[in-house]
Amino acid sequence: MSGPAQHKPVWEARVITLFPDAFPGTLGCSNVGRALASGLWSLKMFDLRNYGVGRHRCVDDSPAGGGPGMVMMPEVVSRAVSDCAVQDSGCPVRSTSNWPIICMSPRGRPFNQHLAERWSRIGGMTIICSRFEGIDERVFVRHDIEEISIGDFVLSGGEIAAQALIEATVRLIPTVLGNEDSATEESFASGLLEYPQYTRPRDWNGFNVPEVLTSGHHGRIAEWRQAMSEELTKSRRPDLWQAYKRTRIASQERRSGKTIR
Amino acid sequence: MSGPAQHKPVWEARVITLFPDAFPGTLGCSNVGRALASGLWSLKMFDLRNYGVGRHRCVDDSPAGGGPGMVMMPEVVSRAVSDCAVQDSGCPVRSTSNWPIICMSPRGRPFNQHLAERWSRIGGMTIICSRFEGIDERVFVRHDIEEISIGDFVLSGGEIAAQALIEATVRLIPTVLGNEDSATEESFASGLLEYPQYTRPRDWNGFNVPEVLTSGHHGRIAEWRQAMSEELTKSRRPDLWQAYKRTRIASQERRSGKTIR
Repeated sequence: MSGPAQHKPVWEARVITLFPDAFPGTLGCSNVGRALASGLWSLKMFDLRNYGVGRHRCVDDSPAGGGPGMVMMPEVVSRAVSDCAVQDSGCPVRSTSNWPIICMSPRGRPFNQHLAERWSRIGGMTIICSRFEGIDERVFVRHDIEEISIGDFVLSGGEIAAQALIEATVRLIPTVLGNEDSATEESFASGLLEYPQYTRPRDWNGFNVPEVLTSGHHGRIAEWRQAMSEELTKSRRPDLWQAYKRTRIASQERRSGKTIR
Repeated sequence: MSGPAQHKPVWEARVITLFPDAFPGTLGCSNVGRALASGLWSLKMFDLRNYGVGRHRCVDDSPAGGGPGMVMMPEVVSRAVSDCAVQDSGCPVRSTSNWPIICMSPRGRPFNQHLAERWSRIGGMTIICSRFEGIDERVFVRHDIEEISIGDFVLSGGEIAAQALIEATVRLIPTVLGNEDSATEESFASGLLEYPQYTRPRDWNGFNVPEVLTSGHHGRIAEWRQAMSEELTKSRRPDLWQAYKRTRIASQERRSGKTIR
């Protein structure tokens, strides 16, 4: 979607999929969509059907060893990945050599905010959207592809997962998100879930905004929000709470130069 | 999307969003999309802008207590939720009274395959797509709304998350997924990640399909796949592996009638 006239390299997602029409989809909306339209990031689709075999451009075959469903053929996916790596996008200074090549799959490493932050600081990435029973394992070895999961549930294909990954990553590019402050106060930025939010009116059908928030006392408001974030994380996500405590102890140790037991 | 002529109730998602045009998006593709087109499930959009205030149909206001960004106003979201609950969809036998009302948010309970299975067996659900800094907390209390998260990362809005949740849920409705066997052998159905898949050719550029898979020995193939699933889960997701072992011990205890230590 970036034209040949554009020579400043911007973050680019190259997506290999059987459903290129599913993109940009929701990625075309709101601030992320406006940034795409104005060339602040770019999206390049590779239609897997174009790499299919024979007159019907077949992309799948039955699983070795039997079982239900179909498996995506190694040669088909491999040719798409290779093509993705060599094609430039009218940008003479772009190199894809340090880009991660990932495949959306429930078997993969869990995607999280740290990965989104890391990936928002590199040039871009290649994302394969798996379908059917998955892709022939040998492709992952041959091209050093990492499987990435957005959660412990199974989708019909990797397209929606890829969009989630792209949206989470692209919005962290400083020029994309309108209000940069927002990104530093939200869930996970501090390792905690975000505190509850309220707005006008103060009394809504008998439900009141907590008094401290209308006190004008900035110190007390900050304390209340921190306490609410901690309480929420503790009750809803004991796993995140444990990780947060470990990080806090480690940074206290670094500051004090000794080990806290 | 289900017309007034249809009187057999099908699973329905009612989605409250500022971006109704983002739907069906990827949900219009493949088996899930074909099932939508042929009325096996249904999608009804509620444009939050229609519930906005004043000439500009404003939906947000600044956070009580200060801070960056904007918060969605309680009255606006509340009116959309109430409207969602009373509107029927030309289906005289539908009742929404037992539907969950959920809001996509990184602060929520993690969505997983068990929730997808449970929700695929009820009549449908109402899903709110949050934007900005989130929704006034009082709406959640007033309408008994549960926050649900698809993962530990932050999106610009709940639309892609809602699509992930809907796709994972809808494909488990027996009439939607073409090949029902597929759903029982995939990741999480057994509590383990799925084993690696291979297809033809047996020798691909020097990379071979594991011999056992071409042996024709069904017992050994099943054993190999189980062992690979266990190995993969152990190395990639120690958390799932621990949960799997606990479940297996508990079911052994139930069968033997005693406690294994």
